Amino acid sequence: MPEGTVIVETITSQALRGNPLGDPFVHRVPVYLPPGYQTGSARYPVVFVLTGFTGRGTMLLNDTAWDEALPQRMDRLIALGTVRPMILVMPDCFTRIGGSQYINSSAVGQYEDHVVKELVAFVDNKYRTIADRDHRAVVGKSSGGYGRVILAMRHPEVFGLMASHSGDMYFELGYKPDLAGAVRALPKFGGLDKLWNEIPTIRPKDKSFHDALNIIAMAACYSPNPPSPHGFDLPFDPETGELREDVWKRWLEWDPVYLVDKHIEALRSLRLIYLDAGLRDEFNLQYGARIFVQRLKERGIQYIHQEFDDGHFNIQYRYDVSFKAISDAIPD
Amino acid sequence: MPEGTVIVETITSQALRGNPLGDPFVHRVPVYLPPGYQTGSARYPVVFVLTGFTGRGTMLLNDTAWDEALPQRMDRLIALGTVRPMILVMPDCFTRIGGSQYINSSAVGQYEDHVVKELVAFVDNKYRTIADRDHRAVVGKSSGGYGRVILAMRHPEVFGLMASHSGDMYFELGYKPDLAGAVRALPKFGGLDKLWNEIPTIRPKDKSFHDALNIIAMAACYSPNPPSPHGFDLPFDPETGELREDVWKRWLEWDPVYLVDKHIEALRSLRLIYLDAGLRDEFNLQYGARIFVQRLKERGIQYIHQEFDDGHFNIQYRYDVSFKAISDAIPD
Amino acid sequence: MPEGTVIVETITSQALRGNPLGDPFVHRVPVYLPPGYQTGSARYPVVFVLTGFTGRGTMLLNDTAWDEALPQRMDRLIALGTVRPMILVMPDCFTRIGGSQYINSSAVGQYEDHVVKELVAFVDNKYRTIADRDHRAVVGKSSGGYGRVILAMRHPEVFGLMASHSGDMYFELGYKPDLAGAVRALPKFGGLDKLWNEIPTIRPKDKSFHDALNIIAMAACYSPNPPSPHGFDLPFDPETGELREDVWKRWLEWDPVYLVDKHIEALRSLRLIYLDAGLRDEFNLQYGARIFVQRLKERGIQYIHQEFDDGHFNIQYRYDVSFKAISDAIPD
Amino acid sequence: MPEGTVIVETITSQALRGNPLGDPFVHRVPVYLPPGYQTGSARYPVVFVLTGFTGRGTMLLNDTAWDEALPQRMDRLIALGTVRPMILVMPDCFTRIGGSQYINSSAVGQYEDHVVKELVAFVDNKYRTIADRDHRAVVGKSSGGYGRVILAMRHPEVFGLMASHSGDMYFELGYKPDLAGAVRALPKFGGLDKLWNEIPTIRPKDKSFHDALNIIAMAACYSPNPPSPHGFDLPFDPETGELREDVWKRWLEWDPVYLVDKHIEALRSLRLIYLDAGLRDEFNLQYGARIFVQRLKERGIQYIHQEFDDGHFNIQYRYDVSFKAISDAIPD
Repeated sequence: MPEGTVIVETITSQALRGNPLGDPFVHRVPVYLPPGYQTGSARYPVVFVLTGFTGRGTMLLNDTAWDEALPQRMDRLIALGTVRPMILVMPDCFTRIGGSQYINSSAVGQYEDHVVKELVAFVDNKYRTIADRDHRAVVGKSSGGYGRVILAMRHPEVFGLMASHSGDMYFELGYKPDLAGAVRALPKFGGLDKLWNEIPTIRPKDKSFHDALNIIAMAACYSPNPPSPHGFDLPFDPETGELREDVWKRWLEWDPVYLVDKHIEALRSLRLIYLDAGLRDEFNLQYGARIFVQRLKERGIQYIHQEFDDGHFNIQYRYDVSFKAISDAIPD
Repeated sequence: MPEGTVIVETITSQALRGNPLGDPFVHRVPVYLPPGYQTGSARYPVVFVLTGFTGRGTMLLNDTAWDEALPQRMDRLIALGTVRPMILVMPDCFTRIGGSQYINSSAVGQYEDHVVKELVAFVDNKYRTIADRDHRAVVGKSSGGYGRVILAMRHPEVFGLMASHSGDMYFELGYKPDLAGAVRALPKFGGLDKLWNEIPTIRPKDKSFHDALNIIAMAACYSPNPPSPHGFDLPFDPETGELREDVWKRWLEWDPVYLVDKHIEALRSLRLIYLDAGLRDEFNLQYGARIFVQRLKERGIQYIHQEFDDGHFNIQYRYDVSFKAISDAIPD
Repeated sequence: MPEGTVIVETITSQALRGNPLGDPFVHRVPVYLPPGYQTGSARYPVVFVLTGFTGRGTMLLNDTAWDEALPQRMDRLIALGTVRPMILVMPDCFTRIGGSQYINSSAVGQYEDHVVKELVAFVDNKYRTIADRDHRAVVGKSSGGYGRVILAMRHPEVFGLMASHSGDMYFELGYKPDLAGAVRALPKFGGLDKLWNEIPTIRPKDKSFHDALNIIAMAACYSPNPPSPHGFDLPFDPETGELREDVWKRWLEWDPVYLVDKHIEALRSLRLIYLDAGLRDEFNLQYGARIFVQRLKERGIQYIHQEFDDGHFNIQYRYDVSFKAISDAIPD
Repeated sequence: MPEGTVIVETITSQALRGNPLGDPFVHRVPVYLPPGYQTGSARYPVVFVLTGFTGRGTMLLNDTAWDEALPQRMDRLIALGTVRPMILVMPDCFTRIGGSQYINSSAVGQYEDHVVKELVAFVDNKYRTIADRDHRAVVGKSSGGYGRVILAMRHPEVFGLMASHSGDMYFELGYKPDLAGAVRALPKFGGLDKLWNEIPTIRPKDKSFHDALNIIAMAACYSPNPPSPHGFDLPFDPETGELREDVWKRWLEWDPVYLVDKHIEALRSLRLIYLDAGLRDEFNLQYGARIFVQRLKERGIQYIHQEFDDGHFNIQYRYDVSFKAISDAIPD
């Protein structure tokens, strides 16, 4: 089987220099070049692959039991003729709190700018991409699925295709049921300050830890507020557990299901909108996908929507489906 | 130890005759008379004890491992001098869907009328109660704790004292995290119609069943709507899981934490407001209690608030505390 | 529907006087007399109904949501003609550690003697039973199912029929998977001494508590040893968790699946051997039942064996099946 | 920080050629060379690092949130002076059923020979190792921890030091509690044949899958039997769940806690015996470690034993401790 090439680029981000969490602004970003790239002169479509919360692009190269790393998957799909040769880019938007949701937040950093402006330009400069929106896709899983929706809706001039696996949407069912867990967990870790400061080194990283982390990391992304402690507002009162409606409303401004009308022209312009989710999704994201595509349907926008019998984790095999959908939707 | 007497009354309810669920309107209602009642002529305060969801008054007589049935508990507390002799009334507001929340609902029945009008009058007529609000308390657990709050707020002329154990309040944390479970469970049981019709006989009554039942029973209580199937509105779209905001708003009109201002004079007039909840409450009701008492505190209303290290179930030992609080707060 | 009568007898046990746990030797034992008993002179078969761990006979009278207490169930089955009129006896073999397994143990008490000698004689003396083994059955659930197997195997001259719901058997799958939970739980409760002394009053009685309690109570029943602390041997080393093979062997001497050959004549003489268990049994007791009936089958002994789709708890509806089987197997 | 070099060797195994599962006999095996190796001429101790079940050496290079891949960890430990420069070898003993336990099994393959004979020779031939037992260690986690114990006990002439993190031992608590889960799971997957044939592709790989897989893979390793279906014996009867005592006894011949006396001289000869386990280990392996070291202590054999507050997974940070112990125990 012809094998593509993986080049792990070291990229210095201006957008992330001086980011508030003190995270690195120099990242290792794998780029997959399809078989034939090295010896030929053709130009290729490019797909930005966004990982989920606690992930970064280099993890897409990880070896996994009974499964393929992303480059091997791509080699196989290309060899089978299922997918056309494409370049894959694997950004690193990991942070010390687990991620960034691929958006700009004064509490986390300018990760949206980093991806949309810096990485796109870098790749188009350095590699033989077909540098237009019709040949540039964004695909992701979980928070990465979220990221791709947000990025494609907000930057239709950049991305012409998007595919989301189990993407974060409909926060009412996706995040809200976990608020109680976060309220309960915070005191176990000595309160927000202590937890926040010790995220990387806390052991064990047990269920309580993740209950709390998920919510506070999302708060840092969705409800930043420079004067607040650590630069963001929690969506609940840590003493009583009461929802802060005003903060929650700010979260909802980032919920894809409520952004359809705002970005209706962007959505209509996309060559591909692909969404799927597992019927056992631990974060109820199959409902978010259903609601999102219902909105699209009501507005006459085309999409591909699939459900499958699995949960939220270890579902990278779904890329077989999304990469094919992307490949099929890209014009020759 | 002197023992009180339990008389299980058979009471025919006019309020419940023809109730929409076809539930019995003739109930067995235990009445506990304290030691000395049978031989003396004194009048006694009266406490209405409301059971939780899936409960009814006769279950308070159930034998339990390592614990006392309610009459034995009361005998002991009276013998110890902790609690003054009082009459206890144990209403039956169970229905084929598990309960009624002690409110009037066109989908379930007039259970609020039944308790507040019929049972109070029955007991005052038949037994030597001190028939005024200062000597009439309502206490309950879980949905019964909910019931007591609602009844005391809405009928301050009837009840002058209230005590709630792990009462349903702050539906945002108490019910909402279970909506997803209900959305998931409905299809497993063949949809709402089939589940609704077979509630009493479904086996096994497993977690999925209770996930669905809890929400649909609350919907029948809080969001009745005669033209809808089965006479009520679900708070979510069963296909997509999307919250029906308008229906949810009708639920919130029954949420005690939002009713404080509406019933502020009633609350202020109460001789006792007692709330507790366990720190491991499976339905997050410790937060509801915190929010409720915070509202009271901000408005200068007195209350007793306790938390304890236990969950939502098997906490009848907490009656030792609430009965004492009631006893202490009743004027001589 | 004609209703039977329940008489709650107060029975003073000589066998239990001075029992090592200091438990009461005066018990309240409900006796159900079928419709017609009070006005007629007929004699009736008698069924001893043994409750599970943490249960006692009076709990069979408890009111339960969507279900019948035992007397109501019996009234219905008799009215339907499914079951012939029979007397039911509901022993109390509860102890401060949750139960007794209905056997004699120097660490717990002479509960086997109590049931087989005292209660049988008491009932035959006082009530119009048909006082022979062919008209005397023992039925039970869980530990009670265990009890009935043990009692019927060991006392075939007393009991001629037996029915077991989810009875404890094949300890290898029924108890052993919980040993690790007990090893873990002991230190949480301050060690065996402290836990043992505080069993009745420990709060909360959470999963850890039951993990530990189940094993230590069974140890008190199956591996008593007067010189040991509290009069019994744990089946594991509390420091290392290592199984004490010699103690475990003593447990296995009480495991019904290993007692078939020893009591082969007793089993062969029974008019009815009925076993069932749920396919979701939390203690794997469906496998115990399968192994037991496989042994019977290999030895040419008749039995009725059923499995059903439910777990270990709230399965009293299965009495409909076992009572019919008993009724059918009793000679006219 | 000086960085070592990772060379991913491609190694063709004669021992594994024609292995019964049809797994590859050509493996990719990472070798870590410490900083200075490439430019100097010194010889170094060598550590074989064995991964757990479902793992293989290349996964030790995986990128992980909030943690280091093994080479980065080693670079840091060497830079700090905590650990001396050492060569690390990361074998691949993964199979289509998840692993091999690093032993020879007619049902799985000659993985013990592969590691002990082939890989040791390969590394000593190709790299500047100090090629004696005093400078050759084996360390592992979980099944890899098991592997290191087995290999060190059985091949003391090859390995002079061993360190085990949460190693499989005391199968009574480590595997047996999961037998019931396997018995339950098999029918869900259509029985052993179907499950066995579809292991790599089954989706979802949920808890039931892993319950079944863990037991059948261990059976293939510990109780191979060429005439049996798939070449091994299950330790239970799949119909009744009954333990096959004879098969289980064959498992126990591979249980380290029962092998101490057999390999007492080997153990006594080791320069280092290090064991640890987490107090929340999901497979109860802290008890296995306690039992093992108790055996050592009773026989006067030195060891290092630690426990820590974490579970079985994501504990690679414990290598900081074991690598230091190895480094300290190697003679200059």
